[in-house]
Amino acid sequence: MLPRVKRFLLGSPLRTTELHEQKLSKKAALTVFASDNLSSNAYATEEILLVLMAAPALLHYAFPISICIVALLTIVVLSYGQLIRAYPSGGGAYTVAKENLGVGAGLVAAAALLIDYILTVAVSVAAGVAAIVSAFPVLLPYRTLLGALAIAILTLVNLRGARESARAFAPPVYTFLVTIYALILVGLYRSGEASGAPPVTAPGDAPNLSQLALIFLLCRAFAHGCVALTGVEAISNGVQAFQPPVVRNAQITMYIMAVILGSLFLGLSYLATEFRILPKLDGSETVVSQIARQVFGVSVPGWGLLYYLTQFSTMAILILAANTSYAGFPRLASILAADRFVPRQLANLGDRLVFSNGIIVLGMAALALIWAFGGNVHALIPLYAIGVFLSFTLSQSGLVVHWLRSHEAGRWWRFGLNALGALTTGLVLLIIAVVKFQEGAWLVVVAVPAVMLLFWKTRRHYFELQTELTLSDFEKPRVARHTVIVPVPIHLNRVVLTAIEYAKSISRDVIAVTVNTGEAKAETLLHNWKKFVEDVPLIVLDSPYRSVARPLLRFIGEIEDLRPDDKVTVVLPEFVPKRWWHNLLHNQTSLILKGALLFRPGIVVTSVPHHLGGTRVTQGREPRHAQ
Amino acid sequence: MLPRVKRFLLGSPLRTTELHEQKLSKKAALTVFASDNLSSNAYATEEILLVLMAAPALLHYAFPISICIVALLTIVVLSYGQLIRAYPSGGGAYTVAKENLGVGAGLVAAAALLIDYILTVAVSVAAGVAAIVSAFPVLLPYRTLLGALAIAILTLVNLRGARESARAFAPPVYTFLVTIYALILVGLYRSGEASGAPPVTAPGDAPNLSQLALIFLLCRAFAHGCVALTGVEAISNGVQAFQPPVVRNAQITMYIMAVILGSLFLGLSYLATEFRILPKLDGSETVVSQIARQVFGVSVPGWGLLYYLTQFSTMAILILAANTSYAGFPRLASILAADRFVPRQLANLGDRLVFSNGIIVLGMAALALIWAFGGNVHALIPLYAIGVFLSFTLSQSGLVVHWLRSHEAGRWWRFGLNALGALTTGLVLLIIAVVKFQEGAWLVVVAVPAVMLLFWKTRRHYFELQTELTLSDFEKPRVARHTVIVPVPIHLNRVVLTAIEYAKSISRDVIAVTVNTGEAKAETLLHNWKKFVEDVPLIVLDSPYRSVARPLLRFIGEIEDLRPDDKVTVVLPEFVPKRWWHNLLHNQTSLILKGALLFRPGIVVTSVPHHLGGTRVTQGREPRHAQ
Repeated sequence: MLPRVKRFLLGSPLRTTELHEQKLSKKAALTVFASDNLSSNAYATEEILLVLMAAPALLHYAFPISICIVALLTIVVLSYGQLIRAYPSGGGAYTVAKENLGVGAGLVAAAALLIDYILTVAVSVAAGVAAIVSAFPVLLPYRTLLGALAIAILTLVNLRGARESARAFAPPVYTFLVTIYALILVGLYRSGEASGAPPVTAPGDAPNLSQLALIFLLCRAFAHGCVALTGVEAISNGVQAFQPPVVRNAQITMYIMAVILGSLFLGLSYLATEFRILPKLDGSETVVSQIARQVFGVSVPGWGLLYYLTQFSTMAILILAANTSYAGFPRLASILAADRFVPRQLANLGDRLVFSNGIIVLGMAALALIWAFGGNVHALIPLYAIGVFLSFTLSQSGLVVHWLRSHEAGRWWRFGLNALGALTTGLVLLIIAVVKFQEGAWLVVVAVPAVMLLFWKTRRHYFELQTELTLSDFEKPRVARHTVIVPVPIHLNRVVLTAIEYAKSISRDVIAVTVNTGEAKAETLLHNWKKFVEDVPLIVLDSPYRSVARPLLRFIGEIEDLRPDDKVTVVLPEFVPKRWWHNLLHNQTSLILKGALLFRPGIVVTSVPHHLGGTRVTQGREPRHAQ
Repeated sequence: MLPRVKRFLLGSPLRTTELHEQKLSKKAALTVFASDNLSSNAYATEEILLVLMAAPALLHYAFPISICIVALLTIVVLSYGQLIRAYPSGGGAYTVAKENLGVGAGLVAAAALLIDYILTVAVSVAAGVAAIVSAFPVLLPYRTLLGALAIAILTLVNLRGARESARAFAPPVYTFLVTIYALILVGLYRSGEASGAPPVTAPGDAPNLSQLALIFLLCRAFAHGCVALTGVEAISNGVQAFQPPVVRNAQITMYIMAVILGSLFLGLSYLATEFRILPKLDGSETVVSQIARQVFGVSVPGWGLLYYLTQFSTMAILILAANTSYAGFPRLASILAADRFVPRQLANLGDRLVFSNGIIVLGMAALALIWAFGGNVHALIPLYAIGVFLSFTLSQSGLVVHWLRSHEAGRWWRFGLNALGALTTGLVLLIIAVVKFQEGAWLVVVAVPAVMLLFWKTRRHYFELQTELTLSDFEKPRVARHTVIVPVPIHLNRVVLTAIEYAKSISRDVIAVTVNTGEAKAETLLHNWKKFVEDVPLIVLDSPYRSVARPLLRFIGEIEDLRPDDKVTVVLPEFVPKRWWHNLLHNQTSLILKGALLFRPGIVVTSVPHHLGGTRVTQGREPRHAQ
């Protein structure tokens, strides 16, 4: 049943030999790697406005702040261009930080990245749902449900393995680009038309805020807008996937992506200010949707379709963005698993040649976030970006060290560029951590060290295990003599006798032991014992408190003490009933004993199972039970 | 930890020899056995009024209907008097029906009784909560919670074992009797005072109902009122607990109980009609509370205390009524377990010498009912009484047969009396089943055969088991030769080597087998194998789909086919980690294999456990880990 459902959902298993990689052209790579980054346009402008709404007079600062963010983007992208050059094999922040700054820094980066992949899924899915809800407000109460559904589908699709991804990604990405550029161009034209309207509140009439509060507010708006930069690093992680010359192609693709991102972001921020759009606090309509409604929705009939196209392509690119985490998270987890910082199972290739366990962990974590935050983008954003900038800072700092150690020509200006990158992103990280702390960033500040602790604890366990299991000084244990103990019930039966015969066949030193709780007389047992078992001593333990397991365990302990050189094996006669509910009809003493004996070092436990309704009884009857 | 909590809640275990019975005087027995029956006054009148409210003109029928019910009570009690005589050892409906009408009838009675015990707990607790809610309306929203709490406490108290019950029961029962009699007397006096008031709606101005609808409504009111009779049978079940002469004492006690019940019931029904009291549909105040408020609450200061005393003593007797089921259900379940109709565990005496499992099952079932019906008495009542009258009818019919077979003097008038009882209760059963069917009685009509089916299925399983396990034709199995299979991982370690040494010590025919999923080269394994294991063949299974368990299971099956005469033992090297969460860091292949091998008849599974951080590594380090 279950395997069939699994096969239906995931497809048949694939052979290990079917694993291969495809190489991407620049155009294909853009669609694969850029969705995460470009999709942040769906919420970045909105987040700036949301902060500025606190002092409406400051709303016109949205555009200058956007320009600052684009400047930051330029620095980060140039800096990452050098990372691609230094690590053409695809240096994620984990690798770069570990190699140059040490394992500790690498693990900080890894923890930040893992958390960020989860947040990317949660935020992107929530924003995608918000785009749809904007178009169809009737869906607002079902945000969480829709988000959960999207995550479930993404998880399933990725468990199947998304081979032809590049081809599938192109249409939504290009549709998104075309519609948003159209939106900006038409919007600019329209805003020119409407230029007679009064300008946005003049700079003069605003600040009844103190100078400090003003700066803090602007910093917060800037910090919120920095989510626009999430996903910039995607290309540098995937350099290997490019057609040669890999470095050049990857760099060019990244620069193109940055230009697109910058122009879209500035365009949307400008239009939002121009059309005096305010974010809706209840999440009923996104800022992009409001712009699109104003630009496309009004005058010319038929243009309304363009509005819906904008919303759907926004949702599509956001879902693709979430999808990139489904590639990144399991890959990073498998690298960490190879280094033994996370459970080994995360390095297992599943039936469909993907790291299934990583995909499932990611899906569950994102689902939990969507659930906890009610599918609300605004609530999730404060957690976001802090992890991204943490890994930016660490990888740029790593590069600084890298160039110091290098002897390459031009290492000095590269050093300068990356130092600038590291300083800038470090500063932004600090700003984000401070101004967003109360809003939720503290969760990430707590989570990073917690995840690192898990890394170290896990690594240590595996290390201890390795030390303990080493073959280097292995001496064969001397199994001198076997003592076999068979616990038997007060009512003798043939299953028990079979187990005793088995015990006798592996050792000449078998002891049977029974517990008398007073429910039946031991005499019958002793009588049957004499009749059926000649050569095995039977010990009867009295149990005035009617416990069965405790006296047996005590007895086994005593035998161990008496015979320190013996290997003690406990042979348990066990029933396997025909139907699962029949288990409820048995006392499960064997199960309880097994569980208890698990914690006794050195004792070997042997189950001699008897299948009820098996060989003896079934034959004549099974058909009657069938159906 | 868990054992300590258990001991705190339940007390230390008791020795089997501490089991003894106490004998009760008539007065003590009344307090122990009568609470179930007498407490039905808390809701019986209300249920009649609730039905009659549908046609307010008919409300004055409440008193005549109550007289009919008291007449029915008389017949039932006289009939049960003969049951006590015929079964002085305490014949429950199950025993009487089984002995005289056959096992089938006995099981119908048993199913009805088990269901009824559960309903007694649910209804009594819900009614007890209603009494308190009437006095403190602020608690209305917490009905379900309060009910659940009461059931939890009852379950715990009974798991501890309620030894000195008779003494503890007396105060609440007598307080209840005194306050309710006082209520009736003062009420009668007051109603005489107020006799100038207009009478309840005259009979003439009512029936714009058809004759049939009128009869149906009156029948429903009667059927609802019949809940007054629940608990009448309690004394006949517990005859053994009386001091000698048991029959006479039990009979007299039952007659006294019936007189009290009848007088209280008639009194309350009369007052409810006289004061024109209507039940509250939302359950915010009970009818008894309304009467008490009118009688005690008004004029004389200080009498208000009497009102609260009435409510609290009503709650107390209802909780005692629920408590009687905690004695009855586990006792009946243990009798059924001895006859193998329910799981054997229900016959186990727990730590405190009570049938713990029965108590837990009852508590869970009652909790589920309270939960499902939101702690609402009116919703639960339609399910009630049908089981009671089913067992009444069956036990009286059983007695009819009993007297026919008897040769005792006076058997003929006893036969007549019980025949009358059987016919009357049978007729009432039919009425209840028909008029309450839609309201919820169908649930019980479905549940009785369902429970019976479980009885038969269980019995049959035990019977088949007995046939299968019989020693009568036991022949010792010939363990000719052992084949031992040891699955080993691709990375050899000392735990595995230890397991192989163990395998070699129990058989000369050991086969090691490993699965190559492609994650590592088999060469290293083969190299190490040559170095550390000379004399055991190693089979390498290639697994292109990376599954580990499936190829191993297939291999084990092939070995079985090749060596049909051998006993196949699978030796599994197993890790037992220091901390539970370390289990997440291992692949659990042994666990999966164990689970799968459980369903392969004839294969013996041996676990050779290795405790991580045990003998070798721990000594120097354990203190660091401690706390």
